[in-house]
Amino acid sequence: MNLILIGFGNVGRALTYILWEKGDRLKGLKLNINVTGIFKSDGGFIDHNGLKLGEILEKGKQHQSWVPEASPLSYIAELPCDVVIEMTPTNVKNGEPGVSFIRKALEEGKDVVTSNKGPLVVSMKELLSLADKKGCFFFYEATVGAAIPIFTVAREFLKHDRILCIEGILNGTTNYILSRMSEDKVSFDDALREAQEMGYAEADPTYDVEGIDAACKLVILANGLMNMNKHLSDVEIEGISRVTPEMIELAEEEGYLVKHIAYLDEEKMEVAPRLVPKNSPLTVGGTFNVITINTELSGSLTFIGKGAGPRETASAILADVITIANKRGGIKSG
Amino acid sequence: MNLILIGFGNVGRALTYILWEKGDRLKGLKLNINVTGIFKSDGGFIDHNGLKLGEILEKGKQHQSWVPEASPLSYIAELPCDVVIEMTPTNVKNGEPGVSFIRKALEEGKDVVTSNKGPLVVSMKELLSLADKKGCFFFYEATVGAAIPIFTVAREFLKHDRILCIEGILNGTTNYILSRMSEDKVSFDDALREAQEMGYAEADPTYDVEGIDAACKLVILANGLMNMNKHLSDVEIEGISRVTPEMIELAEEEGYLVKHIAYLDEEKMEVAPRLVPKNSPLTVGGTFNVITINTELSGSLTFIGKGAGPRETASAILADVITIANKRGGIKSG
Repeated sequence: MNLILIGFGNVGRALTYILWEKGDRLKGLKLNINVTGIFKSDGGFIDHNGLKLGEILEKGKQHQSWVPEASPLSYIAELPCDVVIEMTPTNVKNGEPGVSFIRKALEEGKDVVTSNKGPLVVSMKELLSLADKKGCFFFYEATVGAAIPIFTVAREFLKHDRILCIEGILNGTTNYILSRMSEDKVSFDDALREAQEMGYAEADPTYDVEGIDAACKLVILANGLMNMNKHLSDVEIEGISRVTPEMIELAEEEGYLVKHIAYLDEEKMEVAPRLVPKNSPLTVGGTFNVITINTELSGSLTFIGKGAGPRETASAILADVITIANKRGGIKSG
Repeated sequence: MNLILIGFGNVGRALTYILWEKGDRLKGLKLNINVTGIFKSDGGFIDHNGLKLGEILEKGKQHQSWVPEASPLSYIAELPCDVVIEMTPTNVKNGEPGVSFIRKALEEGKDVVTSNKGPLVVSMKELLSLADKKGCFFFYEATVGAAIPIFTVAREFLKHDRILCIEGILNGTTNYILSRMSEDKVSFDDALREAQEMGYAEADPTYDVEGIDAACKLVILANGLMNMNKHLSDVEIEGISRVTPEMIELAEEEGYLVKHIAYLDEEKMEVAPRLVPKNSPLTVGGTFNVITINTELSGSLTFIGKGAGPRETASAILADVITIANKRGGIKSG
């Protein structure tokens, strides 16, 4: 099975490392994985016969396979390729460059796996229809909750069931900040600074703290799990910057924690600070994410996992790749 | 797709009801399900052309399809049947009558789904090998944590990963008792009596309270998720009957809850009361079950759901049936 990787940041590198380090384990699954192209914004590593991943991780652009200015748009059709893995940075304004890469891949009849929320927030229905029309798989398990297998469970376990509503904590940074404010009486500003120092939050923290990231994930859950056609503008969003230590303390006296909850049902999509009873599964702390789906037949199911992290995200991508390999009946030729 | 149901207690009835009530939804999945036999201990409802499930739920043994003394052992080979669903009561001593029914079904080349822990605790490896030899599917998602999709996730999402250890709360009754003792300062005896009155605990509560039920589920997790060959005698078991309100109070003063934890790694299998930090996902209360799997690549993943309940259990069975239908490429003829 031939793969093209687009994006070689933290997630792309982690995936490359796993493919290299766990090659024998994957062969044990009868998966013979070959990576024929790895693209960065300024060029790509290219080898029609399969890249030597260990060497690329070690040498970077010094490696002989490096082609400056090579763009995936011209190589997707040319290189041997069964699955295109799109891991460029999230852009929630127009989804680019991810949308163009995914569209091109699907148009060429390639299966696609992505960890990039941007294209889904902007053009999810269009891309899913295109995949359907072309008979391609288009999976995106890694976009919400990293290695929390929420879309896999919906696809493989809940086909006969009906999801009534979904709620959860979809952003690890805000959960870290609120947990620190609650458990250790730290102020919002100090907790945010800590999160930035530990690499959880971006230098511009607006995206996390104002709830945009969580709202993006809620859109993907709505469209992916409840067959809706929602966009970011459909979500009522309130961030956590106005939460004070006093509010948290008052809530705790009454048996509640303040959590940044994303909520979705057929009527409403909302991201906002909410009071959660202390014995609820939604009280999980630290940088964890949690997703509860309430179903008609299977009751309430809750999933908790690291919501971010290159290794966890790469693991979810690889799970999607293996699912495609199985659904294709093993190795499909490029 | 033709099904035979063995067992018509709470779970068997709930499954029959769902198959009847949600028939249209299943047809929407291109699943045309026909039930040709439903067996109780003293006979069976039989119709080669497919039973009228609504009528059977209403009329019981008064229905014309009732055949007294009919045994699945003589009908499995004779009736049109793709999947045998085994739901007889759990017997952890010798697994009967479930083992015989499952063995017969596999020998006849039928796929099997079970909610019965007994056959797995006693003969899991034998039955899995037989299924393998016969090219049959043998799924058992409903046996642990009802609708918590732990085996589905392992099969469809973690093939490339490695499970390092598993811990969880696998019995809803003991979790209910400990939660009541902790949250409402009720004594062990009173909490147990309540659980019995509410139908959570059996009249003889030993099986739950002494940890046997949790240990059975741990054996199934060990063999099903970590490819071991374990039996009940491999589990160190300590029940919760010696836990006192004073122990719980002392623990809480230090930031812990007392929970009945099942633990499994390559070295050890144990069910015992343990101290769990208050911010751990393992602190979930009520009759909920929780399972945390620690993996090499996907990090720590936690699953919480109702650990019991006829509808949730039947839902997990139906998910297994649909998985088989998909893996068989839709409808296989009987």
